[in-house]
Amino acid sequence: MARTPRHRRLVLPLLCLLFQGATALLFAVFVRYNHETDAALWHWGNHSTVDNEFYFRYPSFQDVHAMVFVGFGFLMVFLQRYGFSSVGFTFLVATFTLQWATLVQGFLHSFHGGHIHVGLERWAAVRDAGGSMTIHTFGAYFGLFLSRVLYRSQLEKSRQRQSSVYHSDLFAMIGTIFLWIFWPSFNSAPTALGDGQHRTALNTYYSLTASTLSTFALSALVSGDGRLDMVHIQNAALAGGVVVGTSSEMMLTPFGAVAAGFLAGTVSTLGYKFFTPVLESRFKVQDTCGVHNLHGMPGVLGALLGVVVAWLATHEVYGDGLQSVFPLIAQGQRSATSQAVYQLFGMFVTLALASVGGSLGGLLLKLPFLDSPPDSQCFEDQIYWEVPGEQEAEAQRPLRAEEQDTEA
Amino acid sequence: MARTPRHRRLVLPLLCLLFQGATALLFAVFVRYNHETDAALWHWGNHSTVDNEFYFRYPSFQDVHAMVFVGFGFLMVFLQRYGFSSVGFTFLVATFTLQWATLVQGFLHSFHGGHIHVGLERWAAVRDAGGSMTIHTFGAYFGLFLSRVLYRSQLEKSRQRQSSVYHSDLFAMIGTIFLWIFWPSFNSAPTALGDGQHRTALNTYYSLTASTLSTFALSALVSGDGRLDMVHIQNAALAGGVVVGTSSEMMLTPFGAVAAGFLAGTVSTLGYKFFTPVLESRFKVQDTCGVHNLHGMPGVLGALLGVVVAWLATHEVYGDGLQSVFPLIAQGQRSATSQAVYQLFGMFVTLALASVGGSLGGLLLKLPFLDSPPDSQCFEDQIYWEVPGEQEAEAQRPLRAEEQDTEA
Amino acid sequence: MARTPRHRRLVLPLLCLLFQGATALLFAVFVRYNHETDAALWHWGNHSTVDNEFYFRYPSFQDVHAMVFVGFGFLMVFLQRYGFSSVGFTFLVATFTLQWATLVQGFLHSFHGGHIHVGLERWAAVRDAGGSMTIHTFGAYFGLFLSRVLYRSQLEKSRQRQSSVYHSDLFAMIGTIFLWIFWPSFNSAPTALGDGQHRTALNTYYSLTASTLSTFALSALVSGDGRLDMVHIQNAALAGGVVVGTSSEMMLTPFGAVAAGFLAGTVSTLGYKFFTPVLESRFKVQDTCGVHNLHGMPGVLGALLGVVVAWLATHEVYGDGLQSVFPLIAQGQRSATSQAVYQLFGMFVTLALASVGGSLGGLLLKLPFLDSPPDSQCFEDQIYWEVPGEQEAEAQRPLRAEEQDTEA
Repeated sequence: MARTPRHRRLVLPLLCLLFQGATALLFAVFVRYNHETDAALWHWGNHSTVDNEFYFRYPSFQDVHAMVFVGFGFLMVFLQRYGFSSVGFTFLVATFTLQWATLVQGFLHSFHGGHIHVGLERWAAVRDAGGSMTIHTFGAYFGLFLSRVLYRSQLEKSRQRQSSVYHSDLFAMIGTIFLWIFWPSFNSAPTALGDGQHRTALNTYYSLTASTLSTFALSALVSGDGRLDMVHIQNAALAGGVVVGTSSEMMLTPFGAVAAGFLAGTVSTLGYKFFTPVLESRFKVQDTCGVHNLHGMPGVLGALLGVVVAWLATHEVYGDGLQSVFPLIAQGQRSATSQAVYQLFGMFVTLALASVGGSLGGLLLKLPFLDSPPDSQCFEDQIYWEVPGEQEAEAQRPLRAEEQDTEA
Repeated sequence: MARTPRHRRLVLPLLCLLFQGATALLFAVFVRYNHETDAALWHWGNHSTVDNEFYFRYPSFQDVHAMVFVGFGFLMVFLQRYGFSSVGFTFLVATFTLQWATLVQGFLHSFHGGHIHVGLERWAAVRDAGGSMTIHTFGAYFGLFLSRVLYRSQLEKSRQRQSSVYHSDLFAMIGTIFLWIFWPSFNSAPTALGDGQHRTALNTYYSLTASTLSTFALSALVSGDGRLDMVHIQNAALAGGVVVGTSSEMMLTPFGAVAAGFLAGTVSTLGYKFFTPVLESRFKVQDTCGVHNLHGMPGVLGALLGVVVAWLATHEVYGDGLQSVFPLIAQGQRSATSQAVYQLFGMFVTLALASVGGSLGGLLLKLPFLDSPPDSQCFEDQIYWEVPGEQEAEAQRPLRAEEQDTEA
Repeated sequence: MARTPRHRRLVLPLLCLLFQGATALLFAVFVRYNHETDAALWHWGNHSTVDNEFYFRYPSFQDVHAMVFVGFGFLMVFLQRYGFSSVGFTFLVATFTLQWATLVQGFLHSFHGGHIHVGLERWAAVRDAGGSMTIHTFGAYFGLFLSRVLYRSQLEKSRQRQSSVYHSDLFAMIGTIFLWIFWPSFNSAPTALGDGQHRTALNTYYSLTASTLSTFALSALVSGDGRLDMVHIQNAALAGGVVVGTSSEMMLTPFGAVAAGFLAGTVSTLGYKFFTPVLESRFKVQDTCGVHNLHGMPGVLGALLGVVVAWLATHEVYGDGLQSVFPLIAQGQRSATSQAVYQLFGMFVTLALASVGGSLGGLLLKLPFLDSPPDSQCFEDQIYWEVPGEQEAEAQRPLRAEEQDTEA
């Protein structure tokens, strides 16, 4: 097994410790409880408990955690020897994000009197949710450009580890189902309370059901012998959640949600079958998990759908709700058409930032002191984790022995 | 391996596409947002957010999803080579149901002005929940009669796949625990807000604790050497949720809930041990998952329990709550006794419909063009799924190799 | 395999049946619905639904279930041949607890008019939550003293079963993530509604993020080659939830929460690496799951942190909230200093009770008729469960065969 060089041993610890030291310092100086969290500023008896936004935000907030930690963590466990890294590093990155979110969002939204005032409703994890553009499109193309820079022509050497085993696929299905169940909360978490949240959840459900149906249909259709492919079910079935990320808050209509979801599931499944191979052979982009199929294409489609639905916004259709969905239109500062143009512009800015950022990220990861695993050791937990490989062998052997006893 | 005939390849895709096309069309013509979901008709600021039933229904609604998708999906993963089908097809059928529910329930309950007006509180997944009769009894006997028609005398040939492996049993326990945790939400979801939902959840908890205890007790008692049987724990422990499906909304009393749950767990465990074999040998019904023990018998017991508790309903005991539990009694249109008779009648109607429906379903599935797997290939994912069988073997081999390195 | 003696077969069933009989009797005599659960005493229409505490308590209550059943149940599945026992016995003990909680808490808190009046807000599972002392410190040292009494000098004989296998570690990560996600609910469940619950959840999140980061850092730092250890990630990452169990309700400040969590994760990881071996060699305590590292040390640290934060409590800082966090201080019956002394005293009482109780428990388990497994059969499900060992072997063999077909 590839031995980790001595200095490598210090990279992760130093990264964590420096980060935590810095954030802790910033917390000490800037972060305070907001009026709904501070014992002195809010207390039941002085207020109706329901005024405390906590009771409307906390459930969504938990759902988003369940979705990210369990959902994304286990979705990538489908790789037979990369489960520890998939669950472990998702876990690590998510906690990083939670602390940063407090600071970044805090300085943007709740910085006054020299302090950030924190309560659940300020969290980025909740605040930026739902964005087909800002999350899915950005994340996907950032990663794809990064992967382009890090292209490995000899990755074939790790081929045998690039597929799943029976139980790793079942673990991945736990991830898929958690993502499916909590996607409506993810999209609706940052929307306005009331009809906004209600409508967003409903549209997301309709879109997910349609993408699931089209994924099953297409997966059987494109396969040689009509058998379903777990990779499609685990991923493409969720494309409906991505494609309505921008528009589910708007008056998309139930039919619009179903149509969008159906299209997304179809495009995503076809992407896995026909485009992913081309992406590697032609464009030298190795997209192991198919993020281009689940986040890239559905994300762009979702951004464009947002353009169209925004363009159709009228005072008649939205009534008082217009204020919470399109405040600038409601205040007459912007027409529906210009709103649509802004949406379209936002998508191109996102793609530009993602491509530049991803490319730079790739170059950064190529820095000599950040040595990466050899081509023959990719998708292998043993590089980063102590893996109970040998016990596994033993686990089989005594088992055989015990069977005899059981038989006896 | 049994190759899937060419035409077979089209059955699932056509089914999905036709269904989705039809529902999408119906959605376009009939489905609109209801007053709490439409931006123009409901907006925070004009109302107290709490008026929006979404905040009371959405959590139950999610719980029911988690219960069905994860719970039932993984409960059946106990079969060693049927995990993909169990999780995958539960996933597919559940999404089918969600779309149908909107239309069926919509036309029944929220069709006015030529449109269905949808919001979460109208959903069947929530609306029909809790029914010992309509869900468990019906489902169980429908399936058992269907299985009777499809009886395979040579199923022995698949015997080795009809049991579990160590990790498949652990996956199944994820299903069991999700079902246990969310059953109180499942039973209470469609009940009246307030004391109705509170009481239903509480009764369901008490009943589940008792069925769990009696299942552990009986499982050890009936086994040869006092060892517990995973099949009992995975299933019979949940019988307490089924048996109070009808009556948990009523004034069952905590003691009544405990007694009912204890009885259900006992009957269910004994069913697995002694009745399931007879069901196959005598009645030619192959009940692989023991639905008769978890849903059939406890469902009938639950229906009868509902008869008794309804019969005991009085204005004194229910007070104002009578209106929400037994509206017809509250309005004096029906006596408690006649309510009980109606309940009993309902059970027999359910059994009649289930037996006829299940038998017809069985005959339908025998149609020549719907060819089924050979007796030697039952409970085998490879018929419907591309299974990573070969990689599994490879996954073991390099492992052995790597161990050497780890040792080194 | 060690055969279970005939009489052994009756211990568990008798225990369950006697317990259930006794509680059922007590339920019949004493337990009634409380005013929010009884149809006659509370009904929507007469009240605002929101008055019904059910809607604020039920979600936390479910979260605590998910945390205990899934979280603790699967956390211990890391052992390669003890998964059934881990999940199964957690399941059994949790249901026992739920019934006892109703009675014990009922007699303590809601016994009037000769009856216990039950609704969700009375439950111990919710009422005693968060306690670094009463739950974690007590539980940990109770278990450690018990383990001391049951010390096995020949446990080496079961060494090969005392470690994990690849997939058992992934199951354990499901437990870890559930514990992480629901810990904020667990700590905040019994606190005052409003800012109390809001602040507790927020502090717990900050503490968990910090303990996760320090665990990753320390795990890589203390290992020989910079590779992470799953045991640390699965356990020490959660120490942040334990350490703020007492103080998260107080005005700990976000920085205080981060600092506490970071310390807890560090101490816990170092404990696994350096202290657990000493605990066995020097103190003859076999701590297989490292409860001393996750619950013991962080629990004591949490109790001491509670002493300090209570000591700093002032009317200025807490305002009206003081009444709900420190009622005796608010009512002027106690100074912050004496409150701190009481907290410290409480910790020592907890340690004393745990050590005495654990030792007695150990002696109890040594009673001859409760025969325990031989040293060579520890951590082995087959003692208590029918294990599908032989099918597992078969499951492999046909697989190989099928591969040929797949290839063909």
